[in-house]
Amino acid sequence: MNAHSSLVEQSMPRFDLIVIGSGPSGRRAAIQAAKLGKQVLVVERNPRVGGVSVHTGTIPSKALRETVLNLTGWRERGFYGSAYRVKKDISAADLWQRGAKILEHEVDVLEHQFARNRVTTVQGEARFLSPNRIELIRSREAEPEHYEADFFVIACGTRPYRPTHVPFDGKTVFDSDEILKLETLPRSLTVVGAGVIGVEYATIFSALEIAVTLVEPRASFLDFIDRELIEEFMHELRDRNVSLRLGSEVKAVEFDGAGRPVCRIASGRDVTSDMLLYAAGRMGATEGLNLAAAGLETDHRGRLTVDAKTLQTKVPHIYAAGDVIGFPSLASTSMEQGRLAACHAFGLAPQAAPEHFPYGIYAVPEMSTVGMSEEEVIQRKIPYECGIARFRETSRGHIMGLQSGMMKMIFSKKTRRLLGVHIIGEGATELIHIGQAVMALKGTIDYFMESTFNYPTLAEAYKIASLDAWNRAFAPTAAAPEVPDMPEAIEDAA
Amino acid sequence: MNAHSSLVEQSMPRFDLIVIGSGPSGRRAAIQAAKLGKQVLVVERNPRVGGVSVHTGTIPSKALRETVLNLTGWRERGFYGSAYRVKKDISAADLWQRGAKILEHEVDVLEHQFARNRVTTVQGEARFLSPNRIELIRSREAEPEHYEADFFVIACGTRPYRPTHVPFDGKTVFDSDEILKLETLPRSLTVVGAGVIGVEYATIFSALEIAVTLVEPRASFLDFIDRELIEEFMHELRDRNVSLRLGSEVKAVEFDGAGRPVCRIASGRDVTSDMLLYAAGRMGATEGLNLAAAGLETDHRGRLTVDAKTLQTKVPHIYAAGDVIGFPSLASTSMEQGRLAACHAFGLAPQAAPEHFPYGIYAVPEMSTVGMSEEEVIQRKIPYECGIARFRETSRGHIMGLQSGMMKMIFSKKTRRLLGVHIIGEGATELIHIGQAVMALKGTIDYFMESTFNYPTLAEAYKIASLDAWNRAFAPTAAAPEVPDMPEAIEDAA
Repeated sequence: MNAHSSLVEQSMPRFDLIVIGSGPSGRRAAIQAAKLGKQVLVVERNPRVGGVSVHTGTIPSKALRETVLNLTGWRERGFYGSAYRVKKDISAADLWQRGAKILEHEVDVLEHQFARNRVTTVQGEARFLSPNRIELIRSREAEPEHYEADFFVIACGTRPYRPTHVPFDGKTVFDSDEILKLETLPRSLTVVGAGVIGVEYATIFSALEIAVTLVEPRASFLDFIDRELIEEFMHELRDRNVSLRLGSEVKAVEFDGAGRPVCRIASGRDVTSDMLLYAAGRMGATEGLNLAAAGLETDHRGRLTVDAKTLQTKVPHIYAAGDVIGFPSLASTSMEQGRLAACHAFGLAPQAAPEHFPYGIYAVPEMSTVGMSEEEVIQRKIPYECGIARFRETSRGHIMGLQSGMMKMIFSKKTRRLLGVHIIGEGATELIHIGQAVMALKGTIDYFMESTFNYPTLAEAYKIASLDAWNRAFAPTAAAPEVPDMPEAIEDAA
Repeated sequence: MNAHSSLVEQSMPRFDLIVIGSGPSGRRAAIQAAKLGKQVLVVERNPRVGGVSVHTGTIPSKALRETVLNLTGWRERGFYGSAYRVKKDISAADLWQRGAKILEHEVDVLEHQFARNRVTTVQGEARFLSPNRIELIRSREAEPEHYEADFFVIACGTRPYRPTHVPFDGKTVFDSDEILKLETLPRSLTVVGAGVIGVEYATIFSALEIAVTLVEPRASFLDFIDRELIEEFMHELRDRNVSLRLGSEVKAVEFDGAGRPVCRIASGRDVTSDMLLYAAGRMGATEGLNLAAAGLETDHRGRLTVDAKTLQTKVPHIYAAGDVIGFPSLASTSMEQGRLAACHAFGLAPQAAPEHFPYGIYAVPEMSTVGMSEEEVIQRKIPYECGIARFRETSRGHIMGLQSGMMKMIFSKKTRRLLGVHIIGEGATELIHIGQAVMALKGTIDYFMESTFNYPTLAEAYKIASLDAWNRAFAPTAAAPEVPDMPEAIEDAA
């Protein structure tokens, strides 16, 4: 069916809820409200539903990652050597094949989901006329349509930040939405901005043996992640010849005589490459919404501020969710926000957002983290101990030929509880959920000491890291009168 | 260093503990005792330490599995089609390359571990002379040496059961230890015995597009696993043209005129193939131990009976652990048994073995399970509900191109607690630990409803399966006066 079915013409259709945007947060808000029996309208500006997540963000970049790891034989290089390649000449077309297939599938699923739950969808640009009314412009020629609702969820997402000093041309200088249209693969690539998006693309292209330079104005990056993990990450990238240029302010991007982009750095150490990806931030896609008419305003990056618990903007019947409200801008947390907003709007007790949610960075290597970093534990003055396990210490790691990958666990010395888990390496985003469950259910180091893990698995890293922490801080000392069960040392856990 | 360093000649060396066998259970028992400051001797009959696990069992079969999945491009076929192959002509030599490398590495790690913990190791055949004394025969020419100990752990493992009606020749008729010496790949293979070993090899060889027939005398197989999972497994194997012959008693194995093995089935429907793997059971490798002198006897398959909690045989200072005591015969549980035996011997409070441990079946597809099966829940008359998720319902599944793979969760209707998780599909052995943690820490369905999972991951299947169960049994009905937070239906979780 056509997702954007026409509404029967009425003088002024009124809905219980209008959702602006059909990405992860908008979709969840709409479906949740529909499940509660509400009349819901979803307005999507693009011809097909899904938002940035499906069309240019989460899904395409993860599909690209999977394709690159498959075609290069990345996961098998531990055994077959770094020269090993499954496919010798990888073209740009090879890279997008999977993505296009997945995108079709995701959109189909989504359209079907809306239809089944009787959510009305319309295509067009929405614009507030008053706090309870929008006008919708389907096309330049069409008459504006007007809709009213008791509640709104603004889930319009973001678009790349495109500063004027960067000459975007979609050929050699791209933003992160355009990079997916790349027609040829460069031999060298400069990525400006070491946020999640920049880091993911820089490392994926590096896996294709493209010479990548990652430029970041600040002296550090991904600051919400444990520093030891980031140091490991930096080491691995440098080992692969990714050039990391931290503390490098970009003054301008120009073209040299051969038409290659030159990234002018404040220090004078310019970077020239075949192509440049500018991924330094995104803007809330709010500029066409006429938010002033709804009594709202945005920050300098087009983002909305909401109550962290209820997701309400300062206008109580208008909610915002997803990337437009800023950090953490993850599909997983955005979905949760959309659901909470709809629940709150229709009078359901706002279930508290879970205390611990995982971050997943789908770079090469993958990273994932839950709970507190070591820096946070120190700042909060909690007495703690860490345990480290390297994937190569697990039998599964031997079998997979892994040279890298590690897990860091942080325990409270007082309560023995798990405070944080930080993982780098293939499978990190899956493995993190074991630690997440133990944290949420208030498990201690004893859980890991006592549990049996499948052998061989990477999950054994939990046991090894726990044993490491135990030996440092929890093992009975010689002075202790009684010797309880003393587990083996970390080095003997493999 | 040489793992089997000579002992300084003494009239009668006495140890705190003698461990017979250096596989997972023996190794753990020895290391645990050494950590407690005990003098430990490990006797290993093979030239190198490690036991069946390292040399012919767990590690080589998992290495083979990984190699086959890599070389065939198995994990990428969802996208590139079933004709897709990374390597066109896969030879037997290709298959063992990885295994040999891993084996070397595992043995090195193990020898180093023994040396570091000052565990003495000797090579030779051990034989009890009395309940506290063994003689050791290093070679036919050598004089027997005598050793005494206060405690013993028998961790001698198993060897393949080789009935007289099967003409093993190591060329076309193999046992499961010999299969690793295969020099050419057959076009067709008969596997007798659908236990864990038979199922693993049958499915691994099937992934190489060898025509496999799996013959099992009983009408069912892997009975400790949830039936619905096994049905899914059977469906997938048949879909791949594995011929499953349950209820097929093997009367004899003979050779036809062309020298091909013919498996004579009681029903008269014989099976002829290029090669035959006989994997119907293993025997405790106890026959040379002269157990009678220690006051012990075995069952008809050479296995020892122990106290389930303490691992003691009926002679209290002699323990047994690992495959020699039978089910479940997993490296993971064997390690735990070895540790518990050593702890008990040296007066440490015997920490209870964990209530829930996972099973991992490294077949193609992989299976893993923890807690109760649906059959068990019914038998115990516990009111329950199930939830199902298919991997293809997760976004990670779309990206990986997965057509198969599923998760089944079982919850108590009364307590809402998670009672069991059953997974089939790539990653099952890793994913199971999330459910295991929630079960051990007494989590309920609410944990899964409230938690945020990384997106995209296969772990999202936990959320989808929980939503499915919730909608069947836990969602508030229309009659309920208050409507608490109502999550989305399963079909809307993707």
